[in-house]
Amino acid sequence: MLSAAPGVWSVVHGTPEPLTPVALREVPIASAALSAMPEAALPAWAAELKIETSDRGVLIRLPLADGESLYGLGLQLKSHEQRGKKRVLRVNSDPVADTGDSHAPVPFIASTAGWGLLVDTARYASFHTGGQRRACDLAEPAPGVIGTTTDELYRARAGGRRELVIEVPVARGVTVYLFGGPTLKDAVRRYNLFSGGGCLPPLWGLGVWYRAFGKASRSEVEGIAAGLRADRIPCDVLGLEPGWQTKAYPCSYRWAEERFPDHRGFLQGIRGKGFRINCWEHAYVHPSAPVYGEILPHAGPSAVFDGLVPDFLMPAARAAYARHHGVLAAEGIDGFKLDECDHSDFISWPWCFPEHDRFPSGLDGERMHSLFGMMYLRTVHQVYAGRGVRSYHEVRNAGALASPYPFVLYSDLYDHRDFVRGVVGSGFSGLLWSPEVRHATGVEDLVRRIQAVAMSAQALVNAWYIPQPPWANVDRAANNRGESMPERERATALVRDAFRLRMSLLPVIYAAFARYRADGTPPFRALAMDFPQDAEARTVDDQWLIGDDLLFAPVFAGQASRSVYLPSGDWFDLASGRRIAGGERIDEDTPVERMLLYVRSGAILPLAEPVEHVRADTVFRLTVRVYGADPRPCDLHEDDGESDAHERGASNRVRLAWDGSGGRVERSGRWPGRRYEIAEWQRIGG
Amino acid sequence: MLSAAPGVWSVVHGTPEPLTPVALREVPIASAALSAMPEAALPAWAAELKIETSDRGVLIRLPLADGESLYGLGLQLKSHEQRGKKRVLRVNSDPVADTGDSHAPVPFIASTAGWGLLVDTARYASFHTGGQRRACDLAEPAPGVIGTTTDELYRARAGGRRELVIEVPVARGVTVYLFGGPTLKDAVRRYNLFSGGGCLPPLWGLGVWYRAFGKASRSEVEGIAAGLRADRIPCDVLGLEPGWQTKAYPCSYRWAEERFPDHRGFLQGIRGKGFRINCWEHAYVHPSAPVYGEILPHAGPSAVFDGLVPDFLMPAARAAYARHHGVLAAEGIDGFKLDECDHSDFISWPWCFPEHDRFPSGLDGERMHSLFGMMYLRTVHQVYAGRGVRSYHEVRNAGALASPYPFVLYSDLYDHRDFVRGVVGSGFSGLLWSPEVRHATGVEDLVRRIQAVAMSAQALVNAWYIPQPPWANVDRAANNRGESMPERERATALVRDAFRLRMSLLPVIYAAFARYRADGTPPFRALAMDFPQDAEARTVDDQWLIGDDLLFAPVFAGQASRSVYLPSGDWFDLASGRRIAGGERIDEDTPVERMLLYVRSGAILPLAEPVEHVRADTVFRLTVRVYGADPRPCDLHEDDGESDAHERGASNRVRLAWDGSGGRVERSGRWPGRRYEIAEWQRIGG
Repeated sequence: MLSAAPGVWSVVHGTPEPLTPVALREVPIASAALSAMPEAALPAWAAELKIETSDRGVLIRLPLADGESLYGLGLQLKSHEQRGKKRVLRVNSDPVADTGDSHAPVPFIASTAGWGLLVDTARYASFHTGGQRRACDLAEPAPGVIGTTTDELYRARAGGRRELVIEVPVARGVTVYLFGGPTLKDAVRRYNLFSGGGCLPPLWGLGVWYRAFGKASRSEVEGIAAGLRADRIPCDVLGLEPGWQTKAYPCSYRWAEERFPDHRGFLQGIRGKGFRINCWEHAYVHPSAPVYGEILPHAGPSAVFDGLVPDFLMPAARAAYARHHGVLAAEGIDGFKLDECDHSDFISWPWCFPEHDRFPSGLDGERMHSLFGMMYLRTVHQVYAGRGVRSYHEVRNAGALASPYPFVLYSDLYDHRDFVRGVVGSGFSGLLWSPEVRHATGVEDLVRRIQAVAMSAQALVNAWYIPQPPWANVDRAANNRGESMPERERATALVRDAFRLRMSLLPVIYAAFARYRADGTPPFRALAMDFPQDAEARTVDDQWLIGDDLLFAPVFAGQASRSVYLPSGDWFDLASGRRIAGGERIDEDTPVERMLLYVRSGAILPLAEPVEHVRADTVFRLTVRVYGADPRPCDLHEDDGESDAHERGASNRVRLAWDGSGGRVERSGRWPGRRYEIAEWQRIGG
Repeated sequence: MLSAAPGVWSVVHGTPEPLTPVALREVPIASAALSAMPEAALPAWAAELKIETSDRGVLIRLPLADGESLYGLGLQLKSHEQRGKKRVLRVNSDPVADTGDSHAPVPFIASTAGWGLLVDTARYASFHTGGQRRACDLAEPAPGVIGTTTDELYRARAGGRRELVIEVPVARGVTVYLFGGPTLKDAVRRYNLFSGGGCLPPLWGLGVWYRAFGKASRSEVEGIAAGLRADRIPCDVLGLEPGWQTKAYPCSYRWAEERFPDHRGFLQGIRGKGFRINCWEHAYVHPSAPVYGEILPHAGPSAVFDGLVPDFLMPAARAAYARHHGVLAAEGIDGFKLDECDHSDFISWPWCFPEHDRFPSGLDGERMHSLFGMMYLRTVHQVYAGRGVRSYHEVRNAGALASPYPFVLYSDLYDHRDFVRGVVGSGFSGLLWSPEVRHATGVEDLVRRIQAVAMSAQALVNAWYIPQPPWANVDRAANNRGESMPERERATALVRDAFRLRMSLLPVIYAAFARYRADGTPPFRALAMDFPQDAEARTVDDQWLIGDDLLFAPVFAGQASRSVYLPSGDWFDLASGRRIAGGERIDEDTPVERMLLYVRSGAILPLAEPVEHVRADTVFRLTVRVYGADPRPCDLHEDDGESDAHERGASNRVRLAWDGSGGRVERSGRWPGRRYEIAEWQRIGG
């Protein structure tokens, strides 16, 4: 067992494969931040860790303790707790069952016992998390109840020695990384810092996103933008779907002058109206793409959508791609949506390359699936990082060591509870996820989805298959016919309210991301992470924390009320200021306009006057609320919001504190600008 | 390329694994029947077959021709045609997506170009059936249409050289078997004959099955039986669910005297009322099972449901199991339902053993999953075969070379269209499947499901979680409360009618199975198999053939009418005698009592006066219908219906023919008994 970094150990068995997430890392370990964490001990089971090789591959085993809960393994939309499961970490779009298949599987698992484990592999590893008992442990006969439902028959049994068993197929060796605690959150932070720390998106990226109808032309997009401003719907980012290119499926990466005449003029004009542009694409290269000839010798053997699959491990392919996208960025595209970089077992027609393909770099298709999203997004990230600007993007696949990259996952799936579960769980694995809004079953469903996405890492409306916003008509077919629904005005108002609340929380969300970058604490996370010894909190998969002090409980269409669990301690209803004693479930009435947000007692929460979009010179006017006894200081992050100068010290910490008689602002740092000014202080429950 | 049997070739690459379906076969190849088939040539692509080994395993490639359709790969409930797909042949219960996961995946694929291919492996092989184009084949740029649905975007593309690529993980070699045509049906027949021919169930097994409420006691089961007789619902087999044992989950294989006092008396009495008994079980051994001690040294390392997993490859384990079940059979259990011998990735709690487990025989869990059902069912089959009697059973997993065994697959899934697709497709892979009926959404749904199961390999009602028959109350909860639904009488009548039609078709169905045994022709099969050059017939996944001359089109709840495709040639509506010209789709009105059955012109179809159950001395009184011009002879199989004496020549062929002026019966063979007598001949459309 070697020390890989402070509080991080590695174990090498056999001959590890050469092309793995850690081997291919580009961002250095955030060693200083790791050193700043409390000292950690090896996990309790470290001496009992066993790794062995067989004809099948490598098998890793370690004992699990009674009562420890497990989390992680990437974006698992169908489950929250990972104990007692079999998870196969296969990359796949639109997984329909709880098998481990995921847009973004990550071979990292963390425990409430205060440890994390990363298997450094790009293979489809299987994690067996203590669901089986061993035959040799059979002691007491099982009760042998005659069940009459399959659930009764199949329910997991308790008792007996349990193991975590991980199989890595094909490999003749592996490196495993152990992350110390002592808490679950510490282990997750160490994993994120080992990855290089979290990302800090540009301030504009944390505003509202609206992706326009796929077939929209320049004037139609401008019309949509004007409509958003006219309806006073906050919006920072306009997304263009495939129609901006001359060819899509596969992609040419060339502006379609036919639909976007004078595209440079379009970009300039739309930027002048306060919008940033994010453009859809995928990595499959059309023969008419300028980079086609350069990619061809460095492509995989299978065509995908009749286009080339670039091997992003090959420097020439990456350079060609980055160069061309650099031109697109310089012209005014502020970011990209990287579609279909996952896989297709659950799609009627298997469009993606098979696992047995051999790529020029030596990777087979299986490992390429696990690495493709990360290699692709790093290529795009570098386009902006190399120009000294920050960006925020969308991506369909990510993997291990993802936290430093400002890319948010999304899916064509649409179950709202699964989407919420994605926000709750993504924080365990260094991932960001948006429960994007497309259409809805009715106004209630639309508003609930909008409220949830407004409280997530990326407030994204994806109207790619509807020409009008969903608040004009939730029904997809009617929307396409150009019809408004009768409730249009009411729906628009409710959507506006939710997005204005998002904008008023921008300073808090930005601060949470600055924390993510500095010390690896995920900005959006499960209650389990902050309350790991609370048995009820461990199970909660339909509420999440924003930063340290804000708890959001999304409501689902059809609920006239919902049960909310607030962990012990006092909480305050954000809207009403009502104090609630935590430690038990409460029933909250949920009229459609009500969003359930709770502030932890002792928090200082700044709320900004909402702006519709962020400008370089935006100054947020803050109403600073001070909740409960012994208020804790609140640190905001202040910088130019869009360049990488903050990496070289051009930022301020703005500390808001309450000293019993009044509020104090303490600004320290080297950025000369100002992002925040205090309009007033409010004392609540003090 | 070696000759493995007439019209069957084998290709060996590298070092094939020792434990494979063919290596473990027990029934000999039906060589004489294979010799009787027309001469066959190697498939056209034989010289281009490539097999290679890599770190991943073995890769098999062969070119696919334009326009050839592929079928097979086991019980694929979510798809019919297998061209253009990726199929991973993983054993799994209740698969929810079209990935290849199946209760009964079989590495056999057959083509309308007139060939079949079996990969002799127990590994989870992946079949890639021409869905990808190669990058080097990219010629014409794709049209690059801007789609606005994922289906538009992902639809398979046509054109370009296509391959069938099969990957066998881990293996360092493999044997592949090629089956000649010249037709698709010939290739499937050769596969079934290579397996040892099809099974011939006992005549009573082809009657109606009713599985009783899981918690039912002896008297409750006797009450259910009496109720069936009182309602004049045909029924041959009563199924007992877990409650017959002292312990279940895992199993003790001991009668629970508490619920079944004097079980031998119960069995004798129920047999006297004309019922056979089929008992539920699974293979996981409870510590209180008499065979526990003998199984323990030959069990897998993981407990399943806290019971031992027998390694059925170990002779001592198999012998202990067979011996105990021989005692149960001798007491009067006529057959078993072998549950949960598949796997559990799609179940909330992963109850089955993992793929990396090592069994005493040397098999790992992956290969054990693929072989478990076959080894288990052979053990049970031998219990009866060894006593010289035939039986018919249920099983949750089967694999390659399954056709000689009288076991029918079933599932806890319940989508009616998927269930119908199971009947249609199972015939390509030597499998039998029952679309069992449990509960229903209403009377219409119940009747449609009953009508379909009545026309399948096993007319099975599985009322394990409802104390009353579903025709008493379709609603599960109300049924459990003892309530009758208002439509009870009407539902009962419609169910009775469907089952009486089943019983009147018994001679035809029995003859189809005799054919299956003699020459490998599947009794229940897709239109594609008989009309492979008919482009429309290839696609039909909601109609099936029973024998050569009867076509059934199930109706689904909610349909007031349905479209039926009759291949070219004339057909006759079974109920009305109306003549229909085939070769196009027709719209049929479907009042709930109407079952859509069509007879091919030129067929001689005997319909029996329905009996409620089959007795040793049952003689079917036949009305023989002669349809259309140039009637073809119809061969019925006549024997004692329950012993294995027919294997030694104790059977008759009863040939029904029409010579222009009247019907003739030609009986030949060495069984002295009589099973059929002609009541009348009817000439239709002559």
